[in-house]
Amino acid sequence: MHDFTISALSIENKGALLHKINHKTKPQGALGTLELLALQIGLVQNTLSPQLTRPCMLVFAADHGIASIGVSPYPQSVTAQMVRNFLNGGAAINVFTKQHHFELCVIDAGVNDRFEANTNLIDAKISLGTANFLYEPAMTRVQCLEAISRGAKITMSEINKGSNILAFGEMGIGNTASASCLMSVLCKLPIEQCVGRGAGLDDEGLQRKIAILKQAINHHALQDDDPFKALITFGGFEINMIVGGMLMAAERGVLIIIDGFITTAALLVAVKIQPNIIDYCIFAHCSDESGHRLMLQYLNAEPLLNLGLRLGEGSGAVLAYPLIVSAVGFLNEMASFESAGVSEKT
Amino acid sequence: MHDFTISALSIENKGALLHKINHKTKPQGALGTLELLALQIGLVQNTLSPQLTRPCMLVFAADHGIASIGVSPYPQSVTAQMVRNFLNGGAAINVFTKQHHFELCVIDAGVNDRFEANTNLIDAKISLGTANFLYEPAMTRVQCLEAISRGAKITMSEINKGSNILAFGEMGIGNTASASCLMSVLCKLPIEQCVGRGAGLDDEGLQRKIAILKQAINHHALQDDDPFKALITFGGFEINMIVGGMLMAAERGVLIIIDGFITTAALLVAVKIQPNIIDYCIFAHCSDESGHRLMLQYLNAEPLLNLGLRLGEGSGAVLAYPLIVSAVGFLNEMASFESAGVSEKT
Repeated sequence: MHDFTISALSIENKGALLHKINHKTKPQGALGTLELLALQIGLVQNTLSPQLTRPCMLVFAADHGIASIGVSPYPQSVTAQMVRNFLNGGAAINVFTKQHHFELCVIDAGVNDRFEANTNLIDAKISLGTANFLYEPAMTRVQCLEAISRGAKITMSEINKGSNILAFGEMGIGNTASASCLMSVLCKLPIEQCVGRGAGLDDEGLQRKIAILKQAINHHALQDDDPFKALITFGGFEINMIVGGMLMAAERGVLIIIDGFITTAALLVAVKIQPNIIDYCIFAHCSDESGHRLMLQYLNAEPLLNLGLRLGEGSGAVLAYPLIVSAVGFLNEMASFESAGVSEKT
Repeated sequence: MHDFTISALSIENKGALLHKINHKTKPQGALGTLELLALQIGLVQNTLSPQLTRPCMLVFAADHGIASIGVSPYPQSVTAQMVRNFLNGGAAINVFTKQHHFELCVIDAGVNDRFEANTNLIDAKISLGTANFLYEPAMTRVQCLEAISRGAKITMSEINKGSNILAFGEMGIGNTASASCLMSVLCKLPIEQCVGRGAGLDDEGLQRKIAILKQAINHHALQDDDPFKALITFGGFEINMIVGGMLMAAERGVLIIIDGFITTAALLVAVKIQPNIIDYCIFAHCSDESGHRLMLQYLNAEPLLNLGLRLGEGSGAVLAYPLIVSAVGFLNEMASFESAGVSEKT
């Protein structure tokens, strides 16, 4: 595996950026969170005039062995069906990426189906889904590192085409179970606090999911928060690829929009590998999936949106994108008090 | 004044809209607030396939007599300076309306300055600002009704050009003072709960503003929540015109995006005149201006954004617009489980 190195942000422009933000024709601080966002983007790009180029959404799909024992209200076949829906343009992520002019890449990271050749589908399949982590590790060490590498490579290719802002999405029946276990191990939280209804479990289903995941956590009894061990034990091929993609993006100085529960779990892993990655991340929304709020608190993250979303696919990340454009827009385009001849506060 | 009549929404399509929303290829409810929004827009337009056409932002500017006695950290001349900034394209509202392809109308409702002729400025000036409501009513009954009428007429003209979604913005040094008094009278809340820092008062300034407004409220001692009396006593020409504009928009079945503290105060007035107007309103954001949250609670409104904005100009309404587009987009463009061949929940 590539040895990722993510630099701390340079703060050489911080004073000048704050001055620029504070002298726009508005009361100081009146654009709230957008002002913090403009500062962050200026720091990441190390410039007073940042630009967003070729926004790109990478949606990784994979299947999960754990799905065979009833942790989701949907059958595993839905993963492949939804991949075909992505390719046909019928899913939420298609609508939202089209609205905001994102490039959309759909990647088969390990779906339990064979897809017909399609120029819009990137074949990076590791295998036909992970093993059932209730009984054995989800994947081998070789598979784990290979998935991270493939995610990084696919991401690098999009950066090389000109993208300087990326978002990651996912599809995988059962992957909230995987993300909950990663969260429990990496945040050192009891599994009960990390499990939610996923795609819509009822109370009984939720209790069953908690019991299953508790058993899995106890079975493996990981002794530390080693991110690779966590991925090998509880990961998913789409999650691993997102980890690799995020690490590559930050290494290349590219902004990352963080979506919901699954992609934030991937970020938790990436943070354990390279803590500096957090400075490159823009948190799009707080998911309705129980546990996401705790994850965000653990990361000290303030998300842009709170709309009760719990769809996955990266949908929340794309919905938040226009706010990021607005932050860059006011920084670059608004007049200053001086240039507009407006009196400052007395 | 035109006698506004705002119809209750027809619910003939409600069942069919819910069916359409619930059979999109996503877990039920997974788009959170956007699903409620799609339903509302479908009901307002009375169709299963709503469309948003020619979004338009109307920014009304006016001066306030109360500004002469220190309720704002900015001098009154900033109102006219900011109007020129709007006309030159340098303000936040210019950047955001350009980003989201809004028509932008700037209206002189009663600024204390004479503007050079400008094809981008609509001259609807009632007078060179309101009277100081600490000593006398802000305006006469004739001025009050005339301002409402002019706001309605300007709004109708934009609707006639094809806009079916409108937002209202404002500029007026001192207008949070006016809005606070309207709120206190119409929501029957003590003035202390209705006053905030406006464009950035410090603690001392805030206490002074509260004392001044308390004196004004006591001086006039309105005995009921009559919306016209409230406007005559504490209104502003920009606020009155927004009231007229909102009433006209809802009468014509047009969606209204509600911005921050001042425009929500205008809506409070409009609700007292025609309660049905609330069904046509989409609440864009919760302002950082203290009091706005209480206003929203009073109206039972759940805003889309919580970004600590307190800029005015209608900026929050435009920032929320892409979410409204997304709600319409998923409703019209996403595949259904059936059309995409995706299995439903078991």
